[in-house]
Amino acid sequence: MTNRIYTAGLVVIGDEILSGRTHDKNIAQVASWLQVQGIRLSEVRVVPDVTARIVEAVNALREAYDYLFTTGGIGPTHDDISVDAVSEALGVPVIVHPEARAILEKYYADKGGLNEGRLRMARTPEGAELIPNRMSGAPGIRIGNVHMMAGVPHITAGMLDALTGTLEGGAPLISETVGGFIPESEVSTLLRDVEKAHENCQIGSYPFFKEGKVGANFVIRSTDRAELDACLAALCEGLEQAGFAFTHGGI
Amino acid sequence: MTNRIYTAGLVVIGDEILSGRTHDKNIAQVASWLQVQGIRLSEVRVVPDVTARIVEAVNALREAYDYLFTTGGIGPTHDDISVDAVSEALGVPVIVHPEARAILEKYYADKGGLNEGRLRMARTPEGAELIPNRMSGAPGIRIGNVHMMAGVPHITAGMLDALTGTLEGGAPLISETVGGFIPESEVSTLLRDVEKAHENCQIGSYPFFKEGKVGANFVIRSTDRAELDACLAALCEGLEQAGFAFTHGGI
Repeated sequence: MTNRIYTAGLVVIGDEILSGRTHDKNIAQVASWLQVQGIRLSEVRVVPDVTARIVEAVNALREAYDYLFTTGGIGPTHDDISVDAVSEALGVPVIVHPEARAILEKYYADKGGLNEGRLRMARTPEGAELIPNRMSGAPGIRIGNVHMMAGVPHITAGMLDALTGTLEGGAPLISETVGGFIPESEVSTLLRDVEKAHENCQIGSYPFFKEGKVGANFVIRSTDRAELDACLAALCEGLEQAGFAFTHGGI
Repeated sequence: MTNRIYTAGLVVIGDEILSGRTHDKNIAQVASWLQVQGIRLSEVRVVPDVTARIVEAVNALREAYDYLFTTGGIGPTHDDISVDAVSEALGVPVIVHPEARAILEKYYADKGGLNEGRLRMARTPEGAELIPNRMSGAPGIRIGNVHMMAGVPHITAGMLDALTGTLEGGAPLISETVGGFIPESEVSTLLRDVEKAHENCQIGSYPFFKEGKVGANFVIRSTDRAELDACLAALCEGLEQAGFAFTHGGI
């Protein structure tokens, strides 16, 4: 654990997200997992199933951040082109990975055996390692700082589990939340002043509309527990002085 | 309605999405709405509440696509910096928009009146028009091809309603879905061949895991009804010949 901040980018690959057909669950899932590893998700790009667009996004984000994750496009069908695109981005050929092939042969042994589509899932960029997939055989792929995961959220979850503790991270960002039926427009000056007075903390204000009333959750984030606690105390004091009721943990 | 394809980019602004705290709902919402307008969502970038990062994403996507949408960061608090960032991206000053100010004065007349935070929501890039917000007063902002919407999904929904029919679009992308408890790895060759035979159609394959079984939905997309129907018929015939049960509309 160091004071350095570790960052990651995420490329979500898939026409189904851009068409609105599928509600993405991987952004929040990868973000939460990275948080625990002490790595900050710094940018997400959602791109269509078009090789040139995947290549561009992968190259931009793998160079800008410590780690790059991709989700989607590593299945058996013709629209699964992520391996080809990442290989092109890295300038390496696509190979059939012997270990991945062995895993798939075993997995499909009692399911009709390997066929052309299933064999596609053994393809990786040359030089890659595999990320175990305990859910459905076909592995994720790790090459350099690039981590290629499935698009189906529960399979991605299994791959993230397999990666837990294997990536170097910094001090995790910790947070405290207070919330109430408080119009954020009535406390904007307070929030700004409390944040200014606690320089290693950020305060985010997230309005909501519930039970017919407006309110907001205020989330304080820091990598330092003592500073976080001091900032929290100052915010709570300010809200109390202004006569607002609030709940720790948020609403 | 023309044959030209109209495209849009979306910049989702907000630390709360990148921390995993908030599950984004605006990507799917904006995507579905654009689809109906005949506009294709071509790229999404999620960026933090950092001016330089917003400026970079806004400039990249407003130049690359016909329309740019942003969500988030137009509220009353210190972390709402989208107006400043978009103004910087466009090279115009931030002004207090007289019409927006009048709307907010009226909205807050019986809620304690305008204060510093509330007045922030009357700020726009110079030259902007307003997008009505029937939910909570503070308007969205339209300047050039840039459309700035709220982060809170139900407010964004109201702003999208207000924009319905005001943007030029092409033929809407239409789709048909068939799905079944069919392992996609058993039909990958069929999918590829059917897609190849229908050049104005794309077939997406979206695997799922339900009731303890694997399956997939196959979504055919086209801007042409006749070609879509022909492609659908060919896919259904192929699935039948292979002995698979499937459901129109997907599972």
